[in-house]
Amino acid sequence: MRSLDKNIEALVASYKDLGLVNHCGADTLPNRESVAALLQGLEELLFPGFRKNDALDHDNLALITAEKTYRIARELILEVENAMAFALRNTNIPRDEHDTRGRAGCHFAAELITETFFAELPQIRAMLAEDMKAAFAGDPAAKSFEEVIISYPGFEAITAHRLAHFFYNAGVPIIPRMISELIHSRTGIDIHPGAQIGAAFFIDHGTGVVVGETSVIGKNVKIYQGVTLGALSVKKEEADKKRHPTIEDDVTIYANATILGGATVIGRGSVIGGSVWITKPVPPGSTVYIKSGGQVIEPRKQDL
Amino acid sequence: MRSLDKNIEALVASYKDLGLVNHCGADTLPNRESVAALLQGLEELLFPGFRKNDALDHDNLALITAEKTYRIARELILEVENAMAFALRNTNIPRDEHDTRGRAGCHFAAELITETFFAELPQIRAMLAEDMKAAFAGDPAAKSFEEVIISYPGFEAITAHRLAHFFYNAGVPIIPRMISELIHSRTGIDIHPGAQIGAAFFIDHGTGVVVGETSVIGKNVKIYQGVTLGALSVKKEEADKKRHPTIEDDVTIYANATILGGATVIGRGSVIGGSVWITKPVPPGSTVYIKSGGQVIEPRKQDL
Amino acid sequence: MRSLDKNIEALVASYKDLGLVNHCGADTLPNRESVAALLQGLEELLFPGFRKNDALDHDNLALITAEKTYRIARELILEVENAMAFALRNTNIPRDEHDTRGRAGCHFAAELITETFFAELPQIRAMLAEDMKAAFAGDPAAKSFEEVIISYPGFEAITAHRLAHFFYNAGVPIIPRMISELIHSRTGIDIHPGAQIGAAFFIDHGTGVVVGETSVIGKNVKIYQGVTLGALSVKKEEADKKRHPTIEDDVTIYANATILGGATVIGRGSVIGGSVWITKPVPPGSTVYIKSGGQVIEPRKQDL
Repeated sequence: MRSLDKNIEALVASYKDLGLVNHCGADTLPNRESVAALLQGLEELLFPGFRKNDALDHDNLALITAEKTYRIARELILEVENAMAFALRNTNIPRDEHDTRGRAGCHFAAELITETFFAELPQIRAMLAEDMKAAFAGDPAAKSFEEVIISYPGFEAITAHRLAHFFYNAGVPIIPRMISELIHSRTGIDIHPGAQIGAAFFIDHGTGVVVGETSVIGKNVKIYQGVTLGALSVKKEEADKKRHPTIEDDVTIYANATILGGATVIGRGSVIGGSVWITKPVPPGSTVYIKSGGQVIEPRKQDL
Repeated sequence: MRSLDKNIEALVASYKDLGLVNHCGADTLPNRESVAALLQGLEELLFPGFRKNDALDHDNLALITAEKTYRIARELILEVENAMAFALRNTNIPRDEHDTRGRAGCHFAAELITETFFAELPQIRAMLAEDMKAAFAGDPAAKSFEEVIISYPGFEAITAHRLAHFFYNAGVPIIPRMISELIHSRTGIDIHPGAQIGAAFFIDHGTGVVVGETSVIGKNVKIYQGVTLGALSVKKEEADKKRHPTIEDDVTIYANATILGGATVIGRGSVIGGSVWITKPVPPGSTVYIKSGGQVIEPRKQDL
Repeated sequence: MRSLDKNIEALVASYKDLGLVNHCGADTLPNRESVAALLQGLEELLFPGFRKNDALDHDNLALITAEKTYRIARELILEVENAMAFALRNTNIPRDEHDTRGRAGCHFAAELITETFFAELPQIRAMLAEDMKAAFAGDPAAKSFEEVIISYPGFEAITAHRLAHFFYNAGVPIIPRMISELIHSRTGIDIHPGAQIGAAFFIDHGTGVVVGETSVIGKNVKIYQGVTLGALSVKKEEADKKRHPTIEDDVTIYANATILGGATVIGRGSVIGGSVWITKPVPPGSTVYIKSGGQVIEPRKQDL
């Protein structure tokens, strides 16, 4: 093979032209590996023994939990600090103030957020217990709570979401979105970390579900595969508005239904049928379904 | 950072309140890592050299196969025994009988199931050869059988399903569902291990496909992405009924069609068009498609 | 446990009956692990520091890039040579000519393709910069370019596609399809390596998107989750025809729309609404949407 040196030179030059080299000097954002390791650690803390074979027993459980907590806390502080420092560089804050509020401030904030996070972990666990029970009750095929924790993608998605949503609310940049994308990749369920989701939430099957940033979902809501809670407009200047629907308590939304718009409220106790398309509010207690007669059955004469 | 000891105490206390700690004393369920390793091993046995670079040659093939078989058998017995012991603890069987039928019984059953499994492996392989040929015949873009084995998600899904379905029929708890979820995560195809699927089955693209627990699918059936074979009712008390459709031989179901209900039979040789919605039986040899005219084309004046 | 030797014999015998053992003597195709490692390496070259923590600094960037480039080039030549040798064995070329054009020819071709590939890498990077900007502009929730590179599945998919498409055009067998399947598995986005896609392409959310082999997509096109650009016929003998749609510049296609057929052209600047079904050409500047009135809202009286 001929030398590739010329090609390498051109490639390195393109790094300078287009910028965007990460982990280079100060520009250190979390990468996928490190956030995946964090998420794995947090899942082990939430459900000891379910994600990894740790040879736990009732004597060493407290010790192993302490060791894991301190290790994860250290990593979390580092990644949150880096993410905040990155966001700070991207703001319009004048250089002087930037320096004042710089690295030390980011580190302090990262510590504070991490402490608050661990203080809230038992409450997050209590929410997830409700979600687990909702999954068990909502799926005739579920045989035990353990099966839900080990093998239900909808439960995996809401677990990650409740973590990501904490960091989103705490103002941590990028990391919440990385968590939600990791889970989107594993489950096909794409919940934006900004979405507000009440207790006892269950997604069955889940592939193709999209829940947008400003969605608000009540308690005891059940959603099937392919459901979109989306926006009617995707103009950049409307990023701060409520762009996604509100789903009130006790609503069920069947497969592939599409519900769009920030003013679209699905009233309490409604049942939204499969594949329907909704862009206006639906009163409480409604049933929405596709009118039959929209398709043709005839003896076969041709390939579709 | 301040001490996290108080938070750790609260977290460990929540483990006791909510229960559900795994791999702790007797409560040892398979975790995702161990079942993923099992599945990887089984795929290597089914398709030597396709999943892993084993430096096989025609002399060492038998030796490597024997070594792998015994290693996988040992792991399989262990995980099946654990899963059965777990299910036994969750039953209402009185303690005395429980003890009689306890660990030793689970171990014996796990050995028996494992032996039967390996005896059936060549037949499973023969079924998969039919599936592979169906994929090659059914996709104009397929260039070789090897390409199907290496890179077709639909083939990966039916491979895992035929394994999971064996363990489901053998009454093994949880493990079949874990296998199907691993593949759901990789392919977006969610086939419940209980589904009965005939020879020469092909799923193209596959993302979003859902096949429910009591579905019955004949020979030579072809399904595209986003197809749901689902239930009309999801009441827990109907878990033992046939809740999902029957698809007879030689049926093709195009993308995003939804077919629901245990009494819904799609008759032999039918073609179900994309995006249709079916909750009633369809006679053999039918074509079902969406009536045109349901949508509007006009000069653009607004964003949707 | 009884001996499994008989079962192992039967399994090994089935390897001979059905053929299809890989990595055995000359029959050495890439496996998933090796292509995954290649893709990971290429993503690191395209976006230094985003996929892996390499402790880069401005001094060692050129050195690390050179080291990676040579390592990847060596692996790439090997896998491309193997893939070509495999395809050669599957042709009808007479044995003599086969030998003449054999291994040495495959090796020479693999070197040439690899050199051309690295020469084009900066241009591929420039295309991807356009895609990144389109993603940032097209999603109100996007906060920075870096967020797009790190966490947008649509960006990950187009990155892999632009690499796979190079190898597809260079006539490399199997490897392009393996790359596209790896990304399909991670993102739920299934773009055939043959699809021609212009600059500034953005897929949002993406789960369930299918883009067929002969699709042609212009500049500045935006696609949402669940969109299919598919074929009307899937007869094997039509594999060489244009079977998939053409999407002209500046078109937006909302979630779950299905567009089928090689003669179906979506004219420049059109907006295709969610869930529509299109099998005929649409003039430039059109808006296509579902007519309301196709579904029923009523007070709830039954479960769907």
